[in-house]
Amino acid sequence: MSRGQLIILSGPSGVGKSSIVKKVMEQHPKLRFSVSATTREIRPGEVDGVSYYFVTRERFMEMVQRNELLEYAEYVGNCYGTPAKPIDEALDLGYDILLDIEVQGAMQVKEKRPDAVSVFIMAPSFEELERRLTGRGDTAPEKIKKRLETARKEYTVAPRYDYLVVSETGKVEEAADEILSIIKAAHCRLHNRIHLLKEEN
Amino acid sequence: MSRGQLIILSGPSGVGKSSIVKKVMEQHPKLRFSVSATTREIRPGEVDGVSYYFVTRERFMEMVQRNELLEYAEYVGNCYGTPAKPIDEALDLGYDILLDIEVQGAMQVKEKRPDAVSVFIMAPSFEELERRLTGRGDTAPEKIKKRLETARKEYTVAPRYDYLVVSETGKVEEAADEILSIIKAAHCRLHNRIHLLKEEN
Repeated sequence: MSRGQLIILSGPSGVGKSSIVKKVMEQHPKLRFSVSATTREIRPGEVDGVSYYFVTRERFMEMVQRNELLEYAEYVGNCYGTPAKPIDEALDLGYDILLDIEVQGAMQVKEKRPDAVSVFIMAPSFEELERRLTGRGDTAPEKIKKRLETARKEYTVAPRYDYLVVSETGKVEEAADEILSIIKAAHCRLHNRIHLLKEEN
Repeated sequence: MSRGQLIILSGPSGVGKSSIVKKVMEQHPKLRFSVSATTREIRPGEVDGVSYYFVTRERFMEMVQRNELLEYAEYVGNCYGTPAKPIDEALDLGYDILLDIEVQGAMQVKEKRPDAVSVFIMAPSFEELERRLTGRGDTAPEKIKKRLETARKEYTVAPRYDYLVVSETGKVEEAADEILSIIKAAHCRLHNRIHLLKEEN
């Protein structure tokens, strides 16, 4: 059995990432989500180890100091991070791991895991992204404005990703199909299979 | 419309490359074979511009001098080469081009076209390759021996390819599927889509 592949996935709010990810998961039975660690309170309905690993701030800081996290950040007073160990264990079992993460965290992971494959999902145009965010109708204008500002910042980091996938309107399957191809191709990369050649000689 | 992708494909005799390529072509309507130029005589049933571009030695040498070939070699007194122009024209029209070529030529093309994607098709084991070559039953033992020697040499170049695809016995579709994924993923690579980001900003 070959080792799993770590896939870093980012994309601005409103780009349609969750629909695409859902479609990808449906068609790839050996793909698992990475679970983050957080210091925030557990909420009703959340399950420890599934929604998040809920940890104390003390334990979180220990994880940081012991270099147990692939990336971490503080957000509205709470810490969030990606523990390396469960990812490595799943990869060793042959599972591919999808890490759905914002761009700063993505760059930290890329640094620590150069063999990870990184994908940035973008809208067909920025105007279209704006339309999608506005069209939801349930979001306050200031919130939309803030999300678009964030999206603009995220787009400036996009050229550091390995792959760009365009989320065309009404074409969730096409985008999902591209991501599935990227994952499959990643498994065929030389460094993942060079051991097969060595056995020959 | 986005530009096509050049795919370099190599693999030892007996590995099952032609069956895999056939399956890939069936499932990819916009994939075309690269046509080689040669100085050898046209044979009955061959079509100029389809089987080969049949050229005089003088014209071939001119192509070499004008740097019109992505690679070339002499074989049993005849010259063979890959003209760049028809490939570039097809790529510009959005066709993906499959270049089925031996390893030395492949490395020359890789040098001249760093954006090409290179795939080496290997057998599950060298013993299996030997079995496949012997099992054909219509080949003289010395010829088999020579092919295996060539295969060993080819395997030493395999670590310079981007991707390795294993041609498992009876699994032509799986190998074809991997190659199709590699081609699809290649189209999503950053440098092929970065212009879409630039239009945004």
